[in-house]
Amino acid sequence: MTLLLIMPGRETGALEAEIRRLAPGTPVRVWPDTGEPAGVTAVVTWNHPPGSLARFPRLRLIHSFGAGVDHILSDERLPAGVPVCRVVDPGLAEQMQAYLHCVLLEQRFSMRRYLRQQADRAWLPHPQNRGDRVGLLGLGQLGEPVGRYLAGVGYRVAGWSRTPKSLPGIECQSGPEGLDRLLGASDFVICLLPLTPATRGILDASLFARMKPGAHLVNVGRGGHLREPDLVDALAGGRLAGATLDVLSKEPPAADSPLWTAPNLTLTPHVASISDPAVVARQVVENLGRLQRGEPLLHPVDPARHY
Amino acid sequence: MTLLLIMPGRETGALEAEIRRLAPGTPVRVWPDTGEPAGVTAVVTWNHPPGSLARFPRLRLIHSFGAGVDHILSDERLPAGVPVCRVVDPGLAEQMQAYLHCVLLEQRFSMRRYLRQQADRAWLPHPQNRGDRVGLLGLGQLGEPVGRYLAGVGYRVAGWSRTPKSLPGIECQSGPEGLDRLLGASDFVICLLPLTPATRGILDASLFARMKPGAHLVNVGRGGHLREPDLVDALAGGRLAGATLDVLSKEPPAADSPLWTAPNLTLTPHVASISDPAVVARQVVENLGRLQRGEPLLHPVDPARHY
Repeated sequence: MTLLLIMPGRETGALEAEIRRLAPGTPVRVWPDTGEPAGVTAVVTWNHPPGSLARFPRLRLIHSFGAGVDHILSDERLPAGVPVCRVVDPGLAEQMQAYLHCVLLEQRFSMRRYLRQQADRAWLPHPQNRGDRVGLLGLGQLGEPVGRYLAGVGYRVAGWSRTPKSLPGIECQSGPEGLDRLLGASDFVICLLPLTPATRGILDASLFARMKPGAHLVNVGRGGHLREPDLVDALAGGRLAGATLDVLSKEPPAADSPLWTAPNLTLTPHVASISDPAVVARQVVENLGRLQRGEPLLHPVDPARHY
Repeated sequence: MTLLLIMPGRETGALEAEIRRLAPGTPVRVWPDTGEPAGVTAVVTWNHPPGSLARFPRLRLIHSFGAGVDHILSDERLPAGVPVCRVVDPGLAEQMQAYLHCVLLEQRFSMRRYLRQQADRAWLPHPQNRGDRVGLLGLGQLGEPVGRYLAGVGYRVAGWSRTPKSLPGIECQSGPEGLDRLLGASDFVICLLPLTPATRGILDASLFARMKPGAHLVNVGRGGHLREPDLVDALAGGRLAGATLDVLSKEPPAADSPLWTAPNLTLTPHVASISDPAVVARQVVENLGRLQRGEPLLHPVDPARHY
């Protein structure tokens, strides 16, 4: 029951230490030091090199380091029939709530404008932006608690999901007409969808055209949800008042990417919600135990739904 | 019963219209167009020219446009014996809660650092700042609801007041030793005190020296609470990690003020909490009625306490 961590460019020390503490008998290897490929039983992965999972003939579990699994399911040489699990961490929702509340409050108080004014030695108050209608795309593991939180701190929250839902305090929409209703009414549109073939590129010029003029877009889903050139155009043309992106199609973006300087576009370097290595380790060790005992795994992904 | 508005440099249109709507029979004048001074019965003021109130021999009410009255009480030629009232607006507390939550969340997520990084085309995540101990100086009309709110969204809140208080969810301190305990334990020290002879200049080098190293100062009280050169030194020397000032001794600051560029100092142009003209108008009209009927006024100021 050997575990391999494949997280290129990511710090693995805390995760490794915590797994060793919880399961001292489990051998842990760290990519690229895989050892004998036939010895690898399970992997924990974040952005593994595509095709690399096919090297391990006896793989029995592929575990994401985070809530997202698109980086796994998009691998065309993903070994068939091996269960994929994701992390469900209540701390991820708390972080996402706080990050999004910060983005909304910064807009209300023109905080970024004041920072630019300070650099110009200008002292000019602006009226508060009172837009309080938030439209959430996605009402899943993150979307639902985020919606409840924002409703609790006073926002009027609508949410859109693939399948119809009913949640207290959230105006729930589904289907193409529900999406249009949400887009037309929201001062802020926040993407928290899973990345699937159906949602790839959903944030495009056609969606922006259906948004309320002067609204603000926030993408905390996946970079693949957004057609970045469409956003740059919508901001340059003033169709959208602003946008905040925590995820990009390529991270970091190229030095000459227009995203760095698009008007009223704020970038944060994929920090809205970070898996806690201690929580990931607990869940991975639990799933290794279940695998050995032949019990149902925690938080398996349905490959047909992609989440 | 003629009312005069003295608010140099401030927009008075909304306040004037609302007073006329609520009390159509009341003559309203706007400074500097005072008309016959003996005809002025009441004033609404925000930063009136010192001495100007002494011109009106029949003045019976001096009403602040906001919660603060230091701009009135500091006038050495303030007419003796004329009652001073201030505005108590629940909306002021809601705005202050939101503004301060924004400041705390921006620190947690290094938002200002990411904005600078974006300008430099740098993509570098930083760990969240998890400091959650907030120390409030002042537990009055704004301090108390702010403390309750911040405790409700997960901060550990201590508060300091002149007289001992007991408030649920807030660790209440008073006296010099209580202040030291609060300063030594807080990741964020927030000033919401009234400006009185006892609190003028309270935010000085000696106070910064008693703060937790690396803590953050927020002044949303009055500019007179802060010794600005001491703050510039404390930031330059790294004693404080940062500061946010919404109020200054002189607004706007001089073009060559070191405040514009002090390291990790954020300025906002007195926007944390703005009186709603409709609320002010309702309260002023109510007090004019009470004055005519000889009834006790709403929210009178105790000149001995200065608030």
